[in-house]
Amino acid sequence: MMKLARVLKPGTSGRISARSDLMDVLCSNGFFNQVGISTIGQNVGANDRIHAQYYVYKGKAALSACPVLPRFTKLNNGALKVDRPGAMMLTFSPAVAERKYDWARKQLFALSVTEVGSLITLGTKDSCEFFHDPSIRTSAAGQVRKSLSVKPLMDCSGYFISLNVVNNALQTNERLTVPITSAEFAVMCTTFRFALPILMGWDRYNNSQPLLLNVGVTTAKLDASKLPKSIESEWDR
Amino acid sequence: MMKLARVLKPGTSGRISARSDLMDVLCSNGFFNQVGISTIGQNVGANDRIHAQYYVYKGKAALSACPVLPRFTKLNNGALKVDRPGAMMLTFSPAVAERKYDWARKQLFALSVTEVGSLITLGTKDSCEFFHDPSIRTSAAGQVRKSLSVKPLMDCSGYFISLNVVNNALQTNERLTVPITSAEFAVMCTTFRFALPILMGWDRYNNSQPLLLNVGVTTAKLDASKLPKSIESEWDR
Amino acid sequence: MMKLARVLKPGTSGRISARSDLMDVLCSNGFFNQVGISTIGQNVGANDRIHAQYYVYKGKAALSACPVLPRFTKLNNGALKVDRPGAMMLTFSPAVAERKYDWARKQLFALSVTEVGSLITLGTKDSCEFFHDPSIRTSAAGQVRKSLSVKPLMDCSGYFISLNVVNNALQTNERLTVPITSAEFAVMCTTFRFALPILMGWDRYNNSQPLLLNVGVTTAKLDASKLPKSIESEWDR
Amino acid sequence: MMKLARVLKPGTSGRISARSDLMDVLCSNGFFNQVGISTIGQNVGANDRIHAQYYVYKGKAALSACPVLPRFTKLNNGALKVDRPGAMMLTFSPAVAERKYDWARKQLFALSVTEVGSLITLGTKDSCEFFHDPSIRTSAAGQVRKSLSVKPLMDCSGYFISLNVVNNALQTNERLTVPITSAEFAVMCTTFRFALPILMGWDRYNNSQPLLLNVGVTTAKLDASKLPKSIESEWDR
Repeated sequence: MMKLARVLKPGTSGRISARSDLMDVLCSNGFFNQVGISTIGQNVGANDRIHAQYYVYKGKAALSACPVLPRFTKLNNGALKVDRPGAMMLTFSPAVAERKYDWARKQLFALSVTEVGSLITLGTKDSCEFFHDPSIRTSAAGQVRKSLSVKPLMDCSGYFISLNVVNNALQTNERLTVPITSAEFAVMCTTFRFALPILMGWDRYNNSQPLLLNVGVTTAKLDASKLPKSIESEWDR
Repeated sequence: MMKLARVLKPGTSGRISARSDLMDVLCSNGFFNQVGISTIGQNVGANDRIHAQYYVYKGKAALSACPVLPRFTKLNNGALKVDRPGAMMLTFSPAVAERKYDWARKQLFALSVTEVGSLITLGTKDSCEFFHDPSIRTSAAGQVRKSLSVKPLMDCSGYFISLNVVNNALQTNERLTVPITSAEFAVMCTTFRFALPILMGWDRYNNSQPLLLNVGVTTAKLDASKLPKSIESEWDR
Repeated sequence: MMKLARVLKPGTSGRISARSDLMDVLCSNGFFNQVGISTIGQNVGANDRIHAQYYVYKGKAALSACPVLPRFTKLNNGALKVDRPGAMMLTFSPAVAERKYDWARKQLFALSVTEVGSLITLGTKDSCEFFHDPSIRTSAAGQVRKSLSVKPLMDCSGYFISLNVVNNALQTNERLTVPITSAEFAVMCTTFRFALPILMGWDRYNNSQPLLLNVGVTTAKLDASKLPKSIESEWDR
Repeated sequence: MMKLARVLKPGTSGRISARSDLMDVLCSNGFFNQVGISTIGQNVGANDRIHAQYYVYKGKAALSACPVLPRFTKLNNGALKVDRPGAMMLTFSPAVAERKYDWARKQLFALSVTEVGSLITLGTKDSCEFFHDPSIRTSAAGQVRKSLSVKPLMDCSGYFISLNVVNNALQTNERLTVPITSAEFAVMCTTFRFALPILMGWDRYNNSQPLLLNVGVTTAKLDASKLPKSIESEWDR
């Protein structure tokens, strides 16, 4: 079975589903280098300054994976809204000698939440392929095309994960392939499953400060205009 | 296989199993708008003011999902009790143009904990259907009927999720259908599994403040009347 | 397939594997009522004063499930040790009228960690049965025998969960049976999986306060006698 | 199917994939006893001073399992980097009498993250075997060889887990075998899955302090030189 994920081309709608393309835009444009700090709020600190990759070192290339956290905006009423979902960042680096990898020539591929869903449901005989255009919705659209393919090994004991980057401007065509054992794939699937709710911001839904029924006033008719907007919209209709 | 979830009609028993119907009651009655604030305790803040939906945009409609946290009451002894379990809120909105959706015409369906259990155990060839009456146990019972059906795509590569809302008072009959890929369904199942214990309030069971054996007094016969009631009832028999 | 869990009869070994029998001892002896407070440390509060059960109401009986947290002891070096693993407490109550249950006649069965493992790995055609003697290792051993059986429904769409309590002293023999749909079983399995690490105290293993390599002194030969005992024993041999 | 995990022999590359061998080095060298304290940062306390093992007691030996947390280093910019991934520590102890085990003769085997991946994906008829050399990359390499094998029971109702330790220096050859039921294996797999992200340090990726879009300055062109290094490298290229 071949699952095919097309590049979605969002129109003028406010919402973008192909978020991971946007990530590539930001990366390839050096957005985070040049104006990136403007997207960072008061707490650059704690959470995104963790370096905890899962590394797989193989003969021709190394692959690493780590979560990229979502970004929130603070609404006027104080509520937090996911502004940009997180992603699972895959990094490929070519081998330059035995067990030596050239991290300067690394290639990135940011799996969206749904692409992660595709990976974690992959059967041992299944394939899937994802296409990203890092310059989507800019004048440079189509110049760089990335595709990530996951194909079963002959004996179904794992997968080939290949990243192909075609750069028409530089006239380069690079392919980095890492064979993955079923054990390594199990680590990925297990930790990607763990990460999915976090990429979506759902770890903020918890009962550490539970919503309490204020028994004493349940029958009172209180002024709806004082109801916090976020609660209204949550329960609206 | 067709799993069929009937609308349970609780009698005079204090406990209600069809909690998600109650949610629809609250929603359709504008309960949360009018007297809603009376159900909100001292901490409206932190947790329920998060907007983190999983969105699926398709040709005819968009579907989004997010958890609704349970509500607790504080017992006289200070213990917290789940007063109303949480739910997984599904929101359907019709498309009005390419990639434009009319969120004002959205329809809600609050999956109960057990309905979530039905979804996450669905095989690739299985169907299920849930019925809700938002006006259950009121004089308006039967006026609005909602049904959510999940049916496999022809090639079992995903599901059709359809919400049908029949409003006898307004004489309207609306059906919103969103085709879901297996990747999108995997995202839902994974994050719904993550959310289930939270919807039930079980994330409050943890060892951050572990129950300690007070070694020095284990043999002392202490006054049972001073034993906290909640502990007594926990171990009671 | 019939999985059979025998009652383990621990000898004089300091460790007890049939912890859930001990729980029944404590319950049936009213241990927690009479001397129970001696087992409660300085923080009765936060965690174990939560009432968040998963309820299943059926025609002849109701079943509820909730985790019972493990108990820790504080070692001389300040480390925490699991003194008694947690359990998954199942409560059965007979129906006395339509949707009315007699909670005063409830029967408890505390699933051990391994019994939970047995449940969550149960195939749709599998059965399992567990035996507990609440008075094990006392002079009253054998007087009360509890057995919990889980058997597939005819069409494999769920299970019958039955608790049988034979009390030779009172000459009573009570059986409470609750049919469980696969959706309800999925809720149990999902939340029992969530709870397992907590029952074992493993949620205390986390990196909220990460173990740091103190780079500046890595080459120094420090006095081993000052090494905390718990660390020594962890890495010993 | 026989999954075979070879001992990886890392070259001069800065990164070591066979971390669990290193753990055995540290253990066998008494590293943690002698210079161990130098690897402990300011917070020995909280997390690694937990004793919460999963014990399986059988006729000829007992097996226990618990997570060993990863170790972090603090980079100059304040970011935390996983310096040494965690492991799942298995401990085998021989039986010396009925239900009595000689913990002084215990043998350790630290499963790496990928070896845990191999275990949790094991089918009921699958086997796997791991080899560790605790003295790898020292002059004593090859003197002690440990191998852990997991083989299905005849009726596929569980596994034999065997640890074989060959010590050429002492001319000893010890084998400790514990039969594991499918219920016990389910407990292990479930809790190992829970622990995997923690062993990798991924539990530090969360939204407790969410990255906020600082709306007011999004269009400003800020000085890239002030961008925190860790963010730059995260999004680089």
